[in-house]
Parts: sequence; C-alpha cells; structure tokens
Amino acid sequence: MRTLKLTLTYDGTDYAGWQRQTNALAIQQVVEEAFAHLTGGVPPTISGAGRTDSGVHAMGQVASVNVEFEHSPLSVQRALNMRLPPAIRVLEVVEARMGFHARFHATGKAYRYRMVTAPVLSPFDRHFAWHVPWPLDVRAMQQAAESLSGTHDFASFQASGTTITDTTRTLERLTLTDRGGELLLDAAGDGFLRHMVRIIAGTLMEVGAGHRRADSIPDIIEARSRDAAGKTAPPQGLTLMGVRY
Amino acid sequence: MRTLKLTLTYDGTDYAGWQRQTNALAIQQVVEEAFAHLTGGVPPTISGAGRTDSGVHAMGQVASVNVEFEHSPLSVQRALNMRLPPAIRVLEVVEARMGFHARFHATGKAYRYRMVTAPVLSPFDRHFAWHVPWPLDVRAMQQAAESLSGTHDFASFQASGTTITDTTRTLERLTLTDRGGELLLDAAGDGFLRHMVRIIAGTLMEVGAGHRRADSIPDIIEARSRDAAGKTAPPQGLTLMGVRY
Repeated sequence: MRTLKLTLTYDGTDYAGWQRQTNALAIQQVVEEAFAHLTGGVPPTISGAGRTDSGVHAMGQVASVNVEFEHSPLSVQRALNMRLPPAIRVLEVVEARMGFHARFHATGKAYRYRMVTAPVLSPFDRHFAWHVPWPLDVRAMQQAAESLSGTHDFASFQASGTTITDTTRTLERLTLTDRGGELLLDAAGDGFLRHMVRIIAGTLMEVGAGHRRADSIPDIIEARSRDAAGKTAPPQGLTLMGVRY
Repeated sequence: MRTLKLTLTYDGTDYAGWQRQTNALAIQQVVEEAFAHLTGGVPPTISGAGRTDSGVHAMGQVASVNVEFEHSPLSVQRALNMRLPPAIRVLEVVEARMGFHARFHATGKAYRYRMVTAPVLSPFDRHFAWHVPWPLDVRAMQQAAESLSGTHDFASFQASGTTITDTTRTLERLTLTDRGGELLLDAAGDGFLRHMVRIIAGTLMEVGAGHRRADSIPDIIEARSRDAAGKTAPPQGLTLMGVRY
C-alpha cells in the first residue's frame, strides 16, 4: 500500500462543500469518482484536511488517499485533471509516508475571508467576497482582531449544534488588511471550529459598523455561547488557503 | 428628452453576448428589461458601444439610452443595480448631450485578451482566460504584435461571413505582457472588426507555438482573407476594458 498526498484548489460555488453528502454533490465525491478510473472502478476514500462548507473555496486543500497501484504521482495528477470538472484542479500529488492522514495529521490551517467595501460589487467578485458597502471603522475591526489572536476557548465562535466539546484553539495570526475597496481577513491557527472564521468575520463586521465595541471581544469569548458573537458571514467570502503538517 | 450614458461591467459567461437575440438571453435585453421599471413597463432601446460575443466580458462597456423621466443619474444607477442580476452591474450613469449614441460616437475601444500559460488552469480563471499550457516563444509573439500595430486593412482578421467592406482600422496599441504564468494582450484602437482581437490572439499563439513565423504577419495582412490568419481564440479570455469618446 502507498499513501498519496494531494493538493487541490476549487471554486466551491456549485458544490455542497467538501464532505460527501447523501443528497447533494460534494467535492469529495467528485474527486473520489474521478479517482475510481485509477482504481479499477471502485472509488477510494479520500480524506480532506478541511471540511469546507458549501460555497467555500480552496486554494490549497490537502487530501490523502491509500492506493495499491503503481502510477507515478505526476500521472495520477494528470489523470485526475483529465477527469475532474474545471472547477476542481489537482495542483500537486506527492508520495506521503504510509498512513499519512490529511485531517488527523494537520498541525495548522490558513484561511482568508474577503470583504468588498466598494459601493458596487464587481460581477467578477460576486462568488468570491462578501459585499459590505457601508461605512466601517477598520481600526476598530483590527483592534477586535487583535483581541481574538492567541489561545482562547472559541466556543462562542462555533456553529450552534456542534458536538465538539474541546473548543480551545490557537489563532497564531488574525490580521485585517485594508486594500482600498476590499478588506482581507487572514486567519492562521492550529485548528478551526465549524464556521469559526465566518463567525469571526461577521463579528468583526459588526464592530466595524458600530453595532459592537472593539473592546467587547473578551466578554464574547468569556460567554462561551454562540449567541454572544455576531452573525455568520456568508460562505462565498471564505477560502482555505493552505494546510500545515 | 434626455440622453443618459451608462458604464457597465459584466461577467459574460452565462449570456449570449451583448446584442439582443431572438432565441437566447443577451445582456442588452436584461438591461433593457431592468430599465423598464423606470419607464412605465416599456423597455427602452439601449445601445451598447461594443457588441461583445457570448462568453466575452466587460469592465467598461458603455451604453446610451434616451429617456423622458426626471430621475437623477444616481437613482437610475441604484434602481438598475437593484433589478439586475449580480453578473451585470452599472458602474456609472451620467447625463450625456442629447442624441449621444454609445456606438456611433465612440472614437476608440480597449480590449484585453488573457492567456494562462501555467500547466494547471486555476478554477478561478476557467471562465476568464484561454489555457495555453505549452511552450511559447513570447518574444516572437511580441514581434508579431508589433507588425500588427498601426493602420492596416484587417480583412484577414475579421470573422468570415461579415458584410463590412471597409476593413481598415488603426491599432493604436497592441502589447503582449508576460506576467509569469499569464500573458496579457492589450489592444486599443479606433474600431474593431468582428472577432478581430480573438483572431489576433489565436494568430499570435500560433506564432508563439512555432506554427507560424513572426515575420509572416505582413503576408497575412496582405492576403485580405480570413483563411490566412490563425484560429479564433475562445471568447472567455476577452474583456472589453473601456470605450473612448
């Protein structure tokens, strides 16, 4: 048996997220079915590092798969890109140590959330940004982002209904960059809870709009309740940038 | 009566081009129908400067319309953007001198054609570039572009079946920029024949691939025949950047 490590990029607009679903087409299923042509017709299980939601994109999703065949990594990449729809591309295939698991062995991930502040949202951004065309206090948003950096119990920033109980995570980096017309929220950390980046983006937007104070973040963290944080920002602004091992 | 000048941007992927069609949805029709809410239900005729083809995009299409109402340009822009699909946005509405016509009064247009040379085409580029992942001699392409600059009879670079007989045009600028992984062909001129930029892009690509010599351009121009030039590059790489008056 060999283990392969795949790096993937995708436009998540038309898919039900990464994880295989029974009633909707997920990226995992599309990749597994493309892979079946290499494994005698039986789709293998391909494990992705991040379970991106419906409408969320990836520049550097990582996945692992165990195979028995002897095809070279480059020929696997080419065969997959021949079969996959153009919305999903394999950027790289490399040999991994046997038993490598893209999700369990990940030590960190980086996400980017993009907000467009310009009055008119370009058609070319409509699937790739959240349109927030109202006055925003970017300095207050940056101050709030600073309070979120570091190690905290992020229970308030987890989608409600999630069963995960250890909700402490370390945000190694959380920066908000004003590019003029757009704001880029870059988050890197050892792990992320469900909807965590999107709830952070929604909360920061509410700080920027003056609906919350920048210094209210410690209280939100302290509350350990989803209700304490802001709305979940829409999925299309989010991109999984990369995974660290 | 007043005449308004509209600047529009659109993602042309899902439309049958600018010009109204009987059997497919064109951008002109969508804009006219959005406009009908301002004109008592009757869609006015909106004239676009460039008849972009199906799949071709615009950053700065210009259109003109004659109206009787008294709404301000800003309220017209806002009302249209409320009604239009997010793939089509009105960037600006201004008062024009009465009788201004976006197409007849245009004195120049600028187009950009984008080619991606990287081995894998990013999902985010799939509707916005031509994928040419083979070795290309960019210097030869640039030399060919230089021979096409200036005033020529571009009959060889016009879609076959077109009835226009005065095929002399001036390309004020035709530059090919290598951005590393992508080539940008920027064309500005007093007017463009049907498919002209796409046939130029296709011909330059054939020069780059070594199927034609860079110094064969004068012969192609001389031939005054569509058969003498290269293939028409696909529409998705093309964007109408702006119109001059």
